[in-house]
Amino acid sequence: MMNPGIKLVALAVALTFTYSATAQEPISPIEPVKEINLAMVELGKKLYFDPRLSKSGFISCNSCHNLSMGGTDNLKTSIGHNWQQGPINAPTVLNSSMNLAQFWDGRAADLKEQAGGPIANPGEMAFTHTLAIEVLESIPAYVTEFTQVFGPDCINIDQVTEAIAEFEKTLVTPNSRFDQWLLGDTKAITAEELAGYELFKNSGCVACHMGPALGGSSFQKMGLVAPYETKNTAEGLSAVTGKDADRFKFKVPTLRNVELTYPYFHDGEAATLSEAVDIMGRLQLGRKFEKTEIDQMVAFLITLTGEQPSFELPILPPSTDQTPRPAPFE
Amino acid sequence: MMNPGIKLVALAVALTFTYSATAQEPISPIEPVKEINLAMVELGKKLYFDPRLSKSGFISCNSCHNLSMGGTDNLKTSIGHNWQQGPINAPTVLNSSMNLAQFWDGRAADLKEQAGGPIANPGEMAFTHTLAIEVLESIPAYVTEFTQVFGPDCINIDQVTEAIAEFEKTLVTPNSRFDQWLLGDTKAITAEELAGYELFKNSGCVACHMGPALGGSSFQKMGLVAPYETKNTAEGLSAVTGKDADRFKFKVPTLRNVELTYPYFHDGEAATLSEAVDIMGRLQLGRKFEKTEIDQMVAFLITLTGEQPSFELPILPPSTDQTPRPAPFE
Repeated sequence: MMNPGIKLVALAVALTFTYSATAQEPISPIEPVKEINLAMVELGKKLYFDPRLSKSGFISCNSCHNLSMGGTDNLKTSIGHNWQQGPINAPTVLNSSMNLAQFWDGRAADLKEQAGGPIANPGEMAFTHTLAIEVLESIPAYVTEFTQVFGPDCINIDQVTEAIAEFEKTLVTPNSRFDQWLLGDTKAITAEELAGYELFKNSGCVACHMGPALGGSSFQKMGLVAPYETKNTAEGLSAVTGKDADRFKFKVPTLRNVELTYPYFHDGEAATLSEAVDIMGRLQLGRKFEKTEIDQMVAFLITLTGEQPSFELPILPPSTDQTPRPAPFE
Repeated sequence: MMNPGIKLVALAVALTFTYSATAQEPISPIEPVKEINLAMVELGKKLYFDPRLSKSGFISCNSCHNLSMGGTDNLKTSIGHNWQQGPINAPTVLNSSMNLAQFWDGRAADLKEQAGGPIANPGEMAFTHTLAIEVLESIPAYVTEFTQVFGPDCINIDQVTEAIAEFEKTLVTPNSRFDQWLLGDTKAITAEELAGYELFKNSGCVACHMGPALGGSSFQKMGLVAPYETKNTAEGLSAVTGKDADRFKFKVPTLRNVELTYPYFHDGEAATLSEAVDIMGRLQLGRKFEKTEIDQMVAFLITLTGEQPSFELPILPPSTDQTPRPAPFE
């Protein structure tokens, strides 16, 4: 039997080695969620699933950022009120707290600011903040819960979006096989997956898709080396900054759970990961990847699927006789 | 200290008394779910939440029978593919295994037969059974799960609907305050609620709304004493039997969880419980209830809200490169 002292030293060496290995990588593991207000999370979870925040009573946050489906709707562009076709692909809500800003063009500074957008967007939930508050104020169970979380003031839209954002902060996906590898479990990924990661680093993908979310930390032009052709009319960052130089710059999407968040790009026109990797190589890096290279890279990308948020389906408090009724067909 | 023998006798007397009390009532408590195939339930739960069983990739069983909202959509009539307005109010899926038949007109014999309807209905999910199977067959995790549950044959629509039905059988809502009262807890309901129940029995509501589900066991004419006026064109049972005598006969809906399943009637035109009780009294019983009587009856009806099905939001297996993509805007 090994001397316990030697064991300890061996462990320390192993830990040091692991730490160094991780520290050298441009990608870091997803960190556990900290400093969360649990009562606010529970309230925000209900609001996230509540279609009464839409004019129709049919569309909730979860309709387009479906937590059964990687926090997306898996559509090219989303379906809004009255079946309107959305202008852009719905980005995943998973790990979105790590983004430097929200929406593809970054027009919302954070999750709280983002959450108010779709509710009042005529092409999405088509409601107004005033009407949303009227609905919530008419439901005693909500009034009680808002009072517990925010104190006895009337419910306001700031509280609504803050609660939704607090819930969204919990939607991280730790413990992917790649994170297990980053944390020292050398057997967590296969040789092919590791080769894919090496290629991902060496060919330059990692220049933009880096950090814990492998993205979300910068805006980059779509079609850097060669132009990206699309019928989608989204302008990107220039719509926010007004600068012509920002035209067609979009927030680099996270690659966490990218296996689940198809289709890809701001227009949703890349149906598969292979297609997305091929296009990125040609348009962003000026490099035509071989099929074996694409296969390796896709194999690596699939190791980024983490543990999906796991919680009980929330039960929503019922409307009362005073609650304004939805108007789906008006 | 009491002699243990005496204690046992006392318990036996109490139990007998409770049993007798319950046996005299025309309503019985919801029984626990038995003989359930758990693996099939888990598969059925995923299918129930999977919008890939619709043409758009946007509508799942849970869209209109939302388990966060009493197993309904809380709309007068539902929203279908391309925002089509449904012809009839979506009945709750909760306790629907107790119905003598499914749909308002009873055109499906059981839950299994019902489950296939909306998938292929052009006004609802607008898909075909063939395409739904194609989608499922392309997803290895589904293929494995179907194989575990049904054996190694190819996936077929019978298996899909059987699994959904098995999940739906678990969607019962036991332990309402009224059931606690039925089981002997005399303090579980208030004097007003009890008065409402007595009125419910004595005025004749219970003639149709009886049994464990307080309904679901017969077809009755809507507008028995006085005609019911509606713009809704649903014909009811006659559409199934072809008999003119069955015109405007609808399945008596369950009153379990009726607090959550607003709006009411096959056309969804009664917005509140008070309105529904008033109309039922006048049109079915020829009786104009006083406001205090309606209040009592509504108080009773609210004691029928049971424990809502509680489970983790299912995580759906991702599509693959081979999975046919949804076509929401075609």
